[in-house]
Amino acid sequence: MAGRNSLFIPGPTNMPERVRLAMDIYTEDHRAGSAPEFMMPLFEDLKKVFRTKTGEIIVFPSSGTGGWEAAITNTLSPGDRVLTAKIGQFSSLWVDSCRALGIIVEDIDVEWGEGVPVEIIAERLAADKKHEIKGVIVCHNETATGVTSDIKGVRQAMDASNHPALLYVDGISSIGAIEFEMDAWGVDLAVAGSQKGFMLPAGLGLVGVSQKALDAGKTATCPRFYFDFRMMINQNRTGYGPYTPAMGLLRGLRASTDMLLEEGMENVWDRHHHLAEGVRRAVRAWELKTCAKKAQWQSDTVTAIMVPEQIDGQELIKRAYNDFNLSLGAGLARMAGKLFRIGHLGDLNECMLFSALGGAEMVMRDMGMAIEPGKGVGAAVEYWRKNS
Amino acid sequence: MAGRNSLFIPGPTNMPERVRLAMDIYTEDHRAGSAPEFMMPLFEDLKKVFRTKTGEIIVFPSSGTGGWEAAITNTLSPGDRVLTAKIGQFSSLWVDSCRALGIIVEDIDVEWGEGVPVEIIAERLAADKKHEIKGVIVCHNETATGVTSDIKGVRQAMDASNHPALLYVDGISSIGAIEFEMDAWGVDLAVAGSQKGFMLPAGLGLVGVSQKALDAGKTATCPRFYFDFRMMINQNRTGYGPYTPAMGLLRGLRASTDMLLEEGMENVWDRHHHLAEGVRRAVRAWELKTCAKKAQWQSDTVTAIMVPEQIDGQELIKRAYNDFNLSLGAGLARMAGKLFRIGHLGDLNECMLFSALGGAEMVMRDMGMAIEPGKGVGAAVEYWRKNS
Amino acid sequence: MAGRNSLFIPGPTNMPERVRLAMDIYTEDHRAGSAPEFMMPLFEDLKKVFRTKTGEIIVFPSSGTGGWEAAITNTLSPGDRVLTAKIGQFSSLWVDSCRALGIIVEDIDVEWGEGVPVEIIAERLAADKKHEIKGVIVCHNETATGVTSDIKGVRQAMDASNHPALLYVDGISSIGAIEFEMDAWGVDLAVAGSQKGFMLPAGLGLVGVSQKALDAGKTATCPRFYFDFRMMINQNRTGYGPYTPAMGLLRGLRASTDMLLEEGMENVWDRHHHLAEGVRRAVRAWELKTCAKKAQWQSDTVTAIMVPEQIDGQELIKRAYNDFNLSLGAGLARMAGKLFRIGHLGDLNECMLFSALGGAEMVMRDMGMAIEPGKGVGAAVEYWRKNS
Amino acid sequence: MAGRNSLFIPGPTNMPERVRLAMDIYTEDHRAGSAPEFMMPLFEDLKKVFRTKTGEIIVFPSSGTGGWEAAITNTLSPGDRVLTAKIGQFSSLWVDSCRALGIIVEDIDVEWGEGVPVEIIAERLAADKKHEIKGVIVCHNETATGVTSDIKGVRQAMDASNHPALLYVDGISSIGAIEFEMDAWGVDLAVAGSQKGFMLPAGLGLVGVSQKALDAGKTATCPRFYFDFRMMINQNRTGYGPYTPAMGLLRGLRASTDMLLEEGMENVWDRHHHLAEGVRRAVRAWELKTCAKKAQWQSDTVTAIMVPEQIDGQELIKRAYNDFNLSLGAGLARMAGKLFRIGHLGDLNECMLFSALGGAEMVMRDMGMAIEPGKGVGAAVEYWRKNS
Repeated sequence: MAGRNSLFIPGPTNMPERVRLAMDIYTEDHRAGSAPEFMMPLFEDLKKVFRTKTGEIIVFPSSGTGGWEAAITNTLSPGDRVLTAKIGQFSSLWVDSCRALGIIVEDIDVEWGEGVPVEIIAERLAADKKHEIKGVIVCHNETATGVTSDIKGVRQAMDASNHPALLYVDGISSIGAIEFEMDAWGVDLAVAGSQKGFMLPAGLGLVGVSQKALDAGKTATCPRFYFDFRMMINQNRTGYGPYTPAMGLLRGLRASTDMLLEEGMENVWDRHHHLAEGVRRAVRAWELKTCAKKAQWQSDTVTAIMVPEQIDGQELIKRAYNDFNLSLGAGLARMAGKLFRIGHLGDLNECMLFSALGGAEMVMRDMGMAIEPGKGVGAAVEYWRKNS
Repeated sequence: MAGRNSLFIPGPTNMPERVRLAMDIYTEDHRAGSAPEFMMPLFEDLKKVFRTKTGEIIVFPSSGTGGWEAAITNTLSPGDRVLTAKIGQFSSLWVDSCRALGIIVEDIDVEWGEGVPVEIIAERLAADKKHEIKGVIVCHNETATGVTSDIKGVRQAMDASNHPALLYVDGISSIGAIEFEMDAWGVDLAVAGSQKGFMLPAGLGLVGVSQKALDAGKTATCPRFYFDFRMMINQNRTGYGPYTPAMGLLRGLRASTDMLLEEGMENVWDRHHHLAEGVRRAVRAWELKTCAKKAQWQSDTVTAIMVPEQIDGQELIKRAYNDFNLSLGAGLARMAGKLFRIGHLGDLNECMLFSALGGAEMVMRDMGMAIEPGKGVGAAVEYWRKNS
Repeated sequence: MAGRNSLFIPGPTNMPERVRLAMDIYTEDHRAGSAPEFMMPLFEDLKKVFRTKTGEIIVFPSSGTGGWEAAITNTLSPGDRVLTAKIGQFSSLWVDSCRALGIIVEDIDVEWGEGVPVEIIAERLAADKKHEIKGVIVCHNETATGVTSDIKGVRQAMDASNHPALLYVDGISSIGAIEFEMDAWGVDLAVAGSQKGFMLPAGLGLVGVSQKALDAGKTATCPRFYFDFRMMINQNRTGYGPYTPAMGLLRGLRASTDMLLEEGMENVWDRHHHLAEGVRRAVRAWELKTCAKKAQWQSDTVTAIMVPEQIDGQELIKRAYNDFNLSLGAGLARMAGKLFRIGHLGDLNECMLFSALGGAEMVMRDMGMAIEPGKGVGAAVEYWRKNS
Repeated sequence: MAGRNSLFIPGPTNMPERVRLAMDIYTEDHRAGSAPEFMMPLFEDLKKVFRTKTGEIIVFPSSGTGGWEAAITNTLSPGDRVLTAKIGQFSSLWVDSCRALGIIVEDIDVEWGEGVPVEIIAERLAADKKHEIKGVIVCHNETATGVTSDIKGVRQAMDASNHPALLYVDGISSIGAIEFEMDAWGVDLAVAGSQKGFMLPAGLGLVGVSQKALDAGKTATCPRFYFDFRMMINQNRTGYGPYTPAMGLLRGLRASTDMLLEEGMENVWDRHHHLAEGVRRAVRAWELKTCAKKAQWQSDTVTAIMVPEQIDGQELIKRAYNDFNLSLGAGLARMAGKLFRIGHLGDLNECMLFSALGGAEMVMRDMGMAIEPGKGVGAAVEYWRKNS
């Protein structure tokens, strides 16, 4: 099939040429005397992406799931209790992982399409007078439903009851793309992955860790070795790692961190909003609904678009791929077949997104949906052009 | 600026990843014993792209202009007369090159937007009873105006008067993209470049040479060394070249030739027609005219779109590039500022072309043109989708 | 500094161009319908490298250390007892990791330079009438000392006393390079990393798992999530993974697996032996000793060369790097400064190894060592040439 | 065959990773407004490599042979007379090219292995009272014999008789590698190729042109179009080219020019001398002779090594390639089978050259030559080490 794949899954995201080239290198001597000159500034600059001055950033050769496991095992002990909300497929998986690792999870089940219920969390924390809840775990951006939750609000809820629990945030599909403020929001554990806002292949799990979280680690008894913060921090301080680092990916991380900081984090967030809003205008012009039930929850990194009941969203995605070399995101678990997702995070611009919108129009038409051809694209054209 | 450049100039064209990877290699020993195993099948397979069984394909490290010079100097002598038509910028440059090389050119000036005037050529040839015209030179696809000429018709005109002149065809933006039949159309010199249908960077000039042309070379006295067919053919027969070959580009040429032949030339031509027709539907929906004055001349590799008189096409292209990272082709020479061009040849598909169409809509709107947003894209959506 | 780095650390190893190109690709849609066509044959072919027909190969986005943690946590329960020998830095680290994960380790301390003491292991197992030892853990190739242990012998020792313990083998610097027979040697857990014999960057931990080990996993209670075999196997069976796979590395793994199997594992092992033996001839010609105390233990993947007492091996390595862009391996822990290592595993040939040998001669001369220039290289020349 | 090819042909040379990456890019819009920002500084910086302040550098998409044709046709008229010496295969080819282009060549035949005979040239020029000789053509570095000629001496000979002829220098295998001073030596036409000192693939012919040569062009009547200086200079002044530039190669040229200038031309020359001298020490230790008959002519970019009469140099090279993946240069024309060449120009260092020396020892031994193993390498070790 001629031409390139139009990739609009919500991660792994399109890799910028600069990042690709940074990684396309021959094997390096990671133990060379010059290695720390590379490693140490990288860790410093990552802090600027996470927006922390007081925390540490630890990078594991793993997926984001590994970063998550690291956050849990380094700060909690078996039998500890955490509070969380299941707002979609990924937040539900975190619950599974906590339980597998011996943590007791108090989970609030929320209708998919809604964000983290800040009020309920506030209530639970207020009720937890004995401070049995050791951690509050929230998914910043639920990739499955295209819902962004209010992390700042969660922090305010915690502060309101002076609750000492640690705040764990799954920022895998938010950090490096939409507003995220580790220090200002009092996030203790911030988990990111290389394959989303960092525009790299999967293979690195990044964890931002507050000093409070590091302190908690001193008494945490979850068994850990590979994901042990202490071993990593001790070695990273010398500019090396406790085991062979994934140098190729780290070179790419250097490039993508440079790109993010050169653009400026606020500009990166604005760009994501600008592109997302054009996609949402298209969705409205198509007279379709997003999975996100309210505008406040609509994610700037991925839009999940509900299809009419008689339409099989899974078939739609399959046709997009087979007929037009267009990769869209599928509905997952309880949303399987009910929606399709357009990822719009990472290295994108308006013209690239027309591939997603025009392609989606073709396949929706082919599926028999009553979309007026060009209507959605036209709405985006009008929103994205300079003098509108 | 985030995201990739949307490249819709009519060459150099988008490079397929497979071609890029084929060229991304370390220096090879081009004199190694194994070199002929690479070189010789390549020359054979190139014949299948040019559609010749009896001719030879010669590849020069040069641009297409060099291929053109090779075609002239290897077959003509100073003072020889050729007949041609100037239908646009590139066909006019060939006239200049012939004259610089000592050839007398009888050129028919045609309004830009029209194809080669087959009837006039027929008349001139019929009138040339003494066969003073040694060559008929035609531009198959005039990239500047988006006009495809009727090469088969030119051959019929030549045959009608039994004229022995050689038929020279500039196939730079046609070969490997739209129907081209070197043997069936009796083309004696067919010039191609690496950066169009072959989807490579510029740097190779390819010339298809008929046996009749090779015979003509025996008496041709134009001075030549670098572009000498004889030296190349002699060396190529051994699987090597007379000077250091551009191995990187040749590796890429191997890959793109494989891609073309795997797809099948007829399918390649059909795909170009299919994509071009969608673009033309968009142009009609925008209520704009192509530079090509009749449908029969509309090129399947590039569409030149006339802008209203009060609009500066040059400014439009500049904004497309600066505001949206979209590269469109400019109007050249007498068409400067009067049109913009969308190249649709090479490694493209529908979703990619939405970047061009959506982007063009944004910038036309920004320039104050009365385009209904989404109208052109919608027409393409409807044409390109599977069940329309 | 001109020219490339001459890389002779014992991993990450030199990356073949074919592997590099396989990984230099744009982001793929890892959830596309075509993904299983890629993933499933890869897992099958990896079995041929590990030499198992009955086991499973599981690939984690992690370093080899992660593979090790996976082997432990999926088969043992906290408080379980294992038997191992500390023969160098890496085998010592495994002891640390086991302890961190709650396992009781009975470790035999061996002088560095010796292999796993098969007889002592045999004795301990014979004495363990109650079968309290649940696992025997051995490092096949201790990278720190250049010592290869006798895994087949360990299996025989286990069989001699009919001991039911699982056999865990650290094959990180052996699998894909020197003889390794998972099924024939009755290995239950075989851990490899991408950056050694597989000639990839670090970033993948591979674990070969026997059916017996999978059965043991049913009752193993070590907490695990990221490294859980069950989740991986269930997903891998469908051609996908439980979390985002590191597609770039997997594409590279496909290429290196192809290369290994095309060459044939026996030929790969022979080549490593051939190259290693030339290096050892050079060492003898230099009148130096290997860290490996007996010929039977000398590793075919890395040679650790003892320097005279008055010479600082650390300084030698630093000069090699700074003065000649030559990367050698350092002495670690108790061997720090006492030796330097030449890695000779992975994508190497004789001419490449002359860079290591000639470079080593220069730097040894510069350090004041009484090496006759060319003596070591000459011994290798004579051994490696065809008609010697 | 495992491992990489050890490439020691005298060009194309080993490509630095930085150059490779600079070229590994997707298609660029070479007509974008930003193009001149790239092109114009490049032409300026190339002057620093050619060591000219008053001349112009013109870059053609061609091989070095094309650059040569450009130098001739832009400055001479058919029937003009030039003086040259045939000192090897490449200087002989230039004679052929001049004759093919209508130039009368007065050629001095010199025994291969000697440099340009400055005294004879001086005599001929002194005798040419009518100044019928329009050009003196010299090959700076004859790649076939490993002989460097005395360009400065030729200039002095020309000045001695106040001869107004233009000085043409084939600097293809010298510029960017060994001392070359376009202005100081009064070179009027200096021809280089991308694949030697510039460490790129073949595909670019570079010509340094003095103002005197440009003036000569005003009356030169050799037909020319593709290689016309005027068209190139006019377009290059605007930051563009007259035909599609080979952007990939130009991006690589930017990188290699940066590398050369960062290192400093004098340092580049010193490095080439340093490496060449080590190779020559090895040749002496092998008790072999160079083709260059005197030390003053021994080239710092390539050493041609005579083999004993009973040895077939062609077979030696073939075995090096087939048995050891080592690429050496062959003897050409009258030197076929009598020598082999080690190219040592471009991106090399000591450790890399041990691959050539050690490899050569193996194959010479296999061919039955009485070389003491390690002797040549040892001599190089002793010369190249820091404290020798």
